[in-house]
Amino acid sequence: MRVGIIGSGSWATALAKIVTDNQQQISWWVRSESILEHLVQRKHNPQYLSSATFDTSRIRLSINVSDVVRDSDCVVIAVPSAYVEETLGSLARDAFAGKWVVSAIKGMLPEENILLNEWMANRFGLPLSDYYTLMGPCHAEEVARERLSYLTFSGLDESRASQIAEKFNNYYINTVVNTDVIGVQYAAVLKNIYALGAGIAHGLEYGDNFQSVLIANCADEMACFLRKMGVGRVEVGVHTGENPVTHQKDANYAASVYLGDLLVTCYSLHSRNRTFGNMIGKGYSVKSAQLEMNMVAEGYNAAKCIHVVNRMVGAEMPIAETVYRILWEGLHPAAGLKLIEKGLI
Amino acid sequence: MRVGIIGSGSWATALAKIVTDNQQQISWWVRSESILEHLVQRKHNPQYLSSATFDTSRIRLSINVSDVVRDSDCVVIAVPSAYVEETLGSLARDAFAGKWVVSAIKGMLPEENILLNEWMANRFGLPLSDYYTLMGPCHAEEVARERLSYLTFSGLDESRASQIAEKFNNYYINTVVNTDVIGVQYAAVLKNIYALGAGIAHGLEYGDNFQSVLIANCADEMACFLRKMGVGRVEVGVHTGENPVTHQKDANYAASVYLGDLLVTCYSLHSRNRTFGNMIGKGYSVKSAQLEMNMVAEGYNAAKCIHVVNRMVGAEMPIAETVYRILWEGLHPAAGLKLIEKGLI
Repeated sequence: MRVGIIGSGSWATALAKIVTDNQQQISWWVRSESILEHLVQRKHNPQYLSSATFDTSRIRLSINVSDVVRDSDCVVIAVPSAYVEETLGSLARDAFAGKWVVSAIKGMLPEENILLNEWMANRFGLPLSDYYTLMGPCHAEEVARERLSYLTFSGLDESRASQIAEKFNNYYINTVVNTDVIGVQYAAVLKNIYALGAGIAHGLEYGDNFQSVLIANCADEMACFLRKMGVGRVEVGVHTGENPVTHQKDANYAASVYLGDLLVTCYSLHSRNRTFGNMIGKGYSVKSAQLEMNMVAEGYNAAKCIHVVNRMVGAEMPIAETVYRILWEGLHPAAGLKLIEKGLI
Repeated sequence: MRVGIIGSGSWATALAKIVTDNQQQISWWVRSESILEHLVQRKHNPQYLSSATFDTSRIRLSINVSDVVRDSDCVVIAVPSAYVEETLGSLARDAFAGKWVVSAIKGMLPEENILLNEWMANRFGLPLSDYYTLMGPCHAEEVARERLSYLTFSGLDESRASQIAEKFNNYYINTVVNTDVIGVQYAAVLKNIYALGAGIAHGLEYGDNFQSVLIANCADEMACFLRKMGVGRVEVGVHTGENPVTHQKDANYAASVYLGDLLVTCYSLHSRNRTFGNMIGKGYSVKSAQLEMNMVAEGYNAAKCIHVVNRMVGAEMPIAETVYRILWEGLHPAAGLKLIEKGLI
């Protein structure tokens, strides 16, 4: 199986490192000629995760996305959700025919409020059975330092998800597989909203006691939303080299891909969403916080997307809804947190 | 209802502050004449939480525990579990007859591997219907600073638990009630073991990614243990002043008294259990870590107690069991973490 990676940010760079450290060949699409040249000559990405060096003999670099897709059996998409259209939109409708697509995107397409699998289905006719996800609590910076991390691979066909996982399984990456390919994506979207909420609370000077209550209730709200979406039984397994262990059970929202990712995002001081929320809590307007950070935190668009999606789902989501109202409807952060306080258990 | 508080550590002092800030009278047993004198003359505890000042006109101080118990309808016990026998053991068998006992103890009695309710039943014939708990993620230091915190009051009779909660409900304390009076105690015991485990991992230089996976799996293991113990439906309500809201539902292990307390204990750098674990991970022996800290972290005894209890319960607890083996059976911390790694999802 030939692996292709689309993206040249820190997460794409971390994934390229993982697979090539695992002795695999990859094709890799990067955004610009200058990044490509730097990678070829200096063996690292000049802009992101530059401490990770590459054995470029294992990498076929290109700035032509259709070449990379064509030369891959398994295409890993790791660009921010807002750049999916720009990056892949010009490809032919049959570009992904017969290929497996692996989403490493933790966001929804902001224009259409849909997950990547829906966009791929609309645009390329990609069936869900050929769509996989790669999620879990995994700061790229720690991948660069080769500190043990867990990635979860999800797909309707678990044995194929395991085949993909094998490409990523190495001495610092443990892989988990499950079949909840939709649920894990929503969990990844939600945790960015909750990290924003945790940041807002921190900016308003709530303490550690409150923070733990808030994040526990976020975990509960996430589980409520996912249950309301309807998730069935999943098969869970851990691949740690020689002894893969798998067994069947109900979707477990305490697993790393759900709760673990929420925790690392809410508690890490490096989380961009938490930082953005912190600025909102301290009184910055959304506009000025964005200008100051020179970026859009994924949770900002996610709050709006989930607000729209939940009109149909109808889950009780007072925390996510309040974060939405603070960011998109001008609700005062302190007033918003007062609303949240009342519902916490 | 006359409230008595037993204990003069930081948690007992925080509880005395909460109740007296709520305009209530209390009787308060402290360990020594010198603490009592200091409280009378200087209005604060000389040893613990000394930034909290008291309106002593609301407090009847005593170093005679039987006087405080006799003069109270509701006795809050807030001494470390290892000192329960020493503090209460000499009281007459009928000392608690007709009274409500509220445990604020997050540990088991280490000699007998039992919860306080069992010890109170054995020693004083106290029925479980007169036994309540006061738990939740609540660092005493943040109570001193009056930062919003949540306390959960549990008892078989929810309306009586609410009556007790009302004594503690004020502008910086929100109260929650439920009926899971046994489960919340085990959760409080378990979280100290897991905080030790998180500390060991930190001492061994595992990163944030791994830490989040570990803690998520701890939450799962805690839920498995509690389910195996058998917890039924609970009624949950939030009291935020004028508008109490209650509803019935299954025991929710994402609530603050379960997951929230786990999070604050595992993530706080001030957690003694985490600090103790960190030293073990860095290579200190249990003995030298204890000498260095000049204390026994609750999680140390808890690991042994849960090991014994789980022989009967039979829950799958690879994390708690490995922490036990590291602390009590000389398993090397790095080898222990390798075992834990394999089972994480």
